[in-house]
Amino acid sequence: MVEAWLIAPVMAVISILAGFYIHDFVKKQDTGTDQMRFVAGAIKEGARTFLNRMYKTLAYFIAGMALVLLILLPTPIWATTNIMDNVVLACGYIFGAVCSGIAGWMGMDVATDANLRAASAARQGISKSFPIAFRGGAVMGTSVIGLALLGVSSIYFATGDPNVVLGFSFGASAMALFAKAGGGIFTKTADIGADLVGKVEFNLDEDDPRNPAVIADNVGDNVGDVAGMGADLFDSYVASLMAVMILGTVLGGYLIEMPLVYAGLGAIASLIGIFAVNVKEGQEPGAILNRGTYITVGLFLALSYAANTYLGYNLRFWGASAVGLIAGVIIGFTGDYYTSIDQKPAMTTAEASQTGAAVNIITGFSYGLLSTLPPMVGVGIAAWLSYAICAPLGPGYGVYGIGISAFGMLSIVGIVVANDSFGPIGDNAKGIAEQGGLDHETIRILDKMDAAGNTSKAITKGFAIGAAGLTVISILATFKEVAEFTLGTQVIFDLMNPLVMLGALIGVAIPAVFSAQLMLGVGRNAETMITEIRRQFAEIPGLIEGVEGVVPEYEKCIDIATSGALKELVPATLTAIAATLGVGFIFGVEALGGFLAGNIFSGLLLALLMSNAGGLWDNAKKYVEDGNLGGKGSDAHHAAVIGDTVGDPFKDTAGPSLNTLITVIGLVANIFLPLILAYAIF
Amino acid sequence: MVEAWLIAPVMAVISILAGFYIHDFVKKQDTGTDQMRFVAGAIKEGARTFLNRMYKTLAYFIAGMALVLLILLPTPIWATTNIMDNVVLACGYIFGAVCSGIAGWMGMDVATDANLRAASAARQGISKSFPIAFRGGAVMGTSVIGLALLGVSSIYFATGDPNVVLGFSFGASAMALFAKAGGGIFTKTADIGADLVGKVEFNLDEDDPRNPAVIADNVGDNVGDVAGMGADLFDSYVASLMAVMILGTVLGGYLIEMPLVYAGLGAIASLIGIFAVNVKEGQEPGAILNRGTYITVGLFLALSYAANTYLGYNLRFWGASAVGLIAGVIIGFTGDYYTSIDQKPAMTTAEASQTGAAVNIITGFSYGLLSTLPPMVGVGIAAWLSYAICAPLGPGYGVYGIGISAFGMLSIVGIVVANDSFGPIGDNAKGIAEQGGLDHETIRILDKMDAAGNTSKAITKGFAIGAAGLTVISILATFKEVAEFTLGTQVIFDLMNPLVMLGALIGVAIPAVFSAQLMLGVGRNAETMITEIRRQFAEIPGLIEGVEGVVPEYEKCIDIATSGALKELVPATLTAIAATLGVGFIFGVEALGGFLAGNIFSGLLLALLMSNAGGLWDNAKKYVEDGNLGGKGSDAHHAAVIGDTVGDPFKDTAGPSLNTLITVIGLVANIFLPLILAYAIF
Repeated sequence: MVEAWLIAPVMAVISILAGFYIHDFVKKQDTGTDQMRFVAGAIKEGARTFLNRMYKTLAYFIAGMALVLLILLPTPIWATTNIMDNVVLACGYIFGAVCSGIAGWMGMDVATDANLRAASAARQGISKSFPIAFRGGAVMGTSVIGLALLGVSSIYFATGDPNVVLGFSFGASAMALFAKAGGGIFTKTADIGADLVGKVEFNLDEDDPRNPAVIADNVGDNVGDVAGMGADLFDSYVASLMAVMILGTVLGGYLIEMPLVYAGLGAIASLIGIFAVNVKEGQEPGAILNRGTYITVGLFLALSYAANTYLGYNLRFWGASAVGLIAGVIIGFTGDYYTSIDQKPAMTTAEASQTGAAVNIITGFSYGLLSTLPPMVGVGIAAWLSYAICAPLGPGYGVYGIGISAFGMLSIVGIVVANDSFGPIGDNAKGIAEQGGLDHETIRILDKMDAAGNTSKAITKGFAIGAAGLTVISILATFKEVAEFTLGTQVIFDLMNPLVMLGALIGVAIPAVFSAQLMLGVGRNAETMITEIRRQFAEIPGLIEGVEGVVPEYEKCIDIATSGALKELVPATLTAIAATLGVGFIFGVEALGGFLAGNIFSGLLLALLMSNAGGLWDNAKKYVEDGNLGGKGSDAHHAAVIGDTVGDPFKDTAGPSLNTLITVIGLVANIFLPLILAYAIF
Repeated sequence: MVEAWLIAPVMAVISILAGFYIHDFVKKQDTGTDQMRFVAGAIKEGARTFLNRMYKTLAYFIAGMALVLLILLPTPIWATTNIMDNVVLACGYIFGAVCSGIAGWMGMDVATDANLRAASAARQGISKSFPIAFRGGAVMGTSVIGLALLGVSSIYFATGDPNVVLGFSFGASAMALFAKAGGGIFTKTADIGADLVGKVEFNLDEDDPRNPAVIADNVGDNVGDVAGMGADLFDSYVASLMAVMILGTVLGGYLIEMPLVYAGLGAIASLIGIFAVNVKEGQEPGAILNRGTYITVGLFLALSYAANTYLGYNLRFWGASAVGLIAGVIIGFTGDYYTSIDQKPAMTTAEASQTGAAVNIITGFSYGLLSTLPPMVGVGIAAWLSYAICAPLGPGYGVYGIGISAFGMLSIVGIVVANDSFGPIGDNAKGIAEQGGLDHETIRILDKMDAAGNTSKAITKGFAIGAAGLTVISILATFKEVAEFTLGTQVIFDLMNPLVMLGALIGVAIPAVFSAQLMLGVGRNAETMITEIRRQFAEIPGLIEGVEGVVPEYEKCIDIATSGALKELVPATLTAIAATLGVGFIFGVEALGGFLAGNIFSGLLLALLMSNAGGLWDNAKKYVEDGNLGGKGSDAHHAAVIGDTVGDPFKDTAGPSLNTLITVIGLVANIFLPLILAYAIF
């Protein structure tokens, strides 16, 4: 029974092998015409360039941070008796960053093979194209599971100490923040630039190959939505696993290893779910994607119940994990209501466009505000219920319940990432088909897949935000437990303690500041991009006329998006980390607890608001483009396009980066806790 | 020494008399031309109609709530031994609502006399016009002080029980929420309607008398900014006074009455400050307004220090009040940076307009997010410092320090309200002058006063939000103290208690939902208004051509704005109250504490974001209209106008209502606390 947790590394290896198998399957498919290959090649090249350059920039950051950890933590080297602890922690940190990086690279590599082949296969119908796109995206999911579990298991096997997993988690998290925020800035710089000059000034269609930023725009979908989202969920997955393991250490027994068993079972459920998704001709791809999710959820609940009984775990833990998982699904689907093209919010917003852009924006923003309520209540209820389920077992079990519920939500991360990556692959496939001049029917099929991808993206975003919320609550719990353990006294984050209140008020503002920095960065970069696109149209003879053989300088636009993204994300990230350490070292551990809570509150609020309002504006525009309220070119359409553009950095840059931000901040607080306890001023 | 607090009722009477004196002074001034008198008469009539109808709607609400209080609180009548307590509480509640209503009526009555006379006097220069506008607005300030202190003092004199002051405060607060939210919906319905049809479709100037919504627009300035802001600060002022008195009851001694002494001194300082404000020809009115504030702050600090020494109060209390007051001023002025026309945020946003409306909105929104940090930190630091200053005196003194610091901030409420009311009067005067066809030079003078009013409004808004923040923290403290007293055990709002966390997560979402309801209400009403304006232009012969003697049906537009506002604000208000009671009765007192804290966090965040982003967009537009970046009619101008329109309900409807919302919710929780303690499920 002791070795039950070995299911985690075993499933890790199987997941990675499944990824290779899928890659092989994708590679074997037809690659279409020369023109398509050219476009897809440029996208793949651009995506690789971006990842390479980002990893290089990150290498400095990771190396610097590793050095800081090596010198200072868990005990400063001038005060430690066992320097190996510092070495192990720093290595764990680097290992986490590397694993996350490899997962991102693998997922994106397959995604940028799958987009071309899905486009080509669409000529033979949706039943041929869909599996390529979906399984291609699923590799991001299998990579996340595989590398996360492999990393955590091997650290646990080597050290037996969940605290080193904290270092691993912090490494993965730093990586995720860069990937998500950097990818987010990249993708919207390209998107806004391509739209504002190409579509508005020169009246080109979306994905017109004459547009110099078109490849950058397609690259952006991959780096933002595939690699970024993968890193984000890698981060949440590892962080919640780490949090439960540390909370389990306090309680002892099977509670340290149980989450690894659950993780292994979640991997099985996800793999089966992934291979169960198949679309027949005439079927609705959106419904099929959701079916895959339901199958996975059902399987996980059944498997974990069986394992629970077989291994003699207390049924209450299974209950808590089920609460988290079900809450995740519910949160995802309510998010869908607020953004779906055929629901009241999107339609009302579209109608408001008839009175102009301002009313469209006010209406969409208002629905975005409304959309925050159900998930906030959902996260709160899930935390409370899972606590209440496990609390009767004794002190410390309640918060363990919250931890296991967060991890329950994330157990099906494989299928969630697969669903999410499907979106950008479908989007890219459509772009390649259009630039490759494929026929109308093929593009219609890809359009349908693109729309299904948008819906599944809205659901997984809600899911990711909810999971991050529960995860950070359990990170806050580990923070408290470790502080109490170190101090030997009770630590209470009492809101009537003015230091806790002060920390919370500052913590509430930080996600707002971080969002602002990212969005201002997008604005600045977009202006540079716009200047460059205008220059190319002015200076390259024959470009706008579409003379045969005249190709824009795509790589220059990719370069602008890349350098801009890397330049902008560093100050935003450093501000957040500096604020965390500042509050901790100046005002002490209780203020830092309040700070973490404040971060959760406004992080969730703003993430939900921005993601949902952005998705809503996008679909309101699509509703008009579908021929309603005057259709394309009408005044309502112009107004809706403005709303959609406002929503771009909301939903693809700032909103979804906030999950990662709050996790990183929680981990920074946890990892620096020994120093803060020793050196804080107040 | 016992009767030192009688300075409060004495100054209350003097303030009210000063209000009558000023009204007399205003009434004596020249009233200009027939056309001006016609316009001003219509505005006054419209404002009175709105207030009358709002008070009637409110009467039902107040009566219903008074009945609920009578039956249930402080002890349900079927369980009480002393039914007089219930009668007194219900009467205190009604008395609070009535006092707030009278103050609003008095202030608005003078404001709508002053606007006409300020317009007329502007023909002789700014030194004649300014005092009329400023003193006319100051009556709102003297009324707030006068009626608030008279009400609180007489209740304290009659009952000696600060808990009845809680009822008074709740009455004032309910009134404030309606006045602020109702006025906010009214004013933006009219404004957006007038702009979108008049300016955009028919190319009329602002304040063109042919525009059917022009009077409604001017009425809106009065009901939203004069009566609404007055009620808002009446509410904060009374609530913070009540909170300190209740916290003082626990500690005993002079601590119950000391805040009344401070209130009286603040009234003296404000009155002197008001009469010290005078503009000579060629002086900058904005600088003069700020000088008035500085004089008042300095005077209050000196007077309160002297009184403190003379009466033998502990100097620590004076220190805490000084911390609050200085924090309020700093918060106000940093808000000014983010909205001022000559600072980086507004200019960058204006420049972003050149790339279109979407980039303008993204940029302004981002600066709005950034602007939340300094005030959040300011409120947090003020709470912590004032706690730290008083905590050494013993248990309970720390939170008393927070209370007295909130009240210190609000002690100069008289001059703050005066500064704030100056804005709409100047705005109205300009409108009357334009509709009355006064010469260019006169309008230039009024324009200058209007601009100074906008700046002082930005400062007072920041001040009001900061004051509300500190006030609600002290209301949370009274909630805890009273709960502990009733239960006889310690009550801790520990963030690791999942009920507190659940309450906080719900509490965070409520201000978002409330804002959304108000803004969607504005959107719906504006559409009705737009239809009506278009109908009048189509059906009234000669209106658009400006035929002599043809007048639009102004009252129909006023009626639409009025009914719409009253219809929309009721569900928003009830949702917020229902959520508070729901969390309290289902999840209990600890969850409700978390809920209040969550409200403070997101209430402050969203209020600052919306108020500042709105002000910023407004000034970015003005910057373009001043001839920069292409000036009026350029593409940048069109983009900036869209941003400004988005900002309208942000800064004048939702943003500033949130202060009041969080206060009301805090008071609801306090007043229903005995029932919640007795009947909560968990």
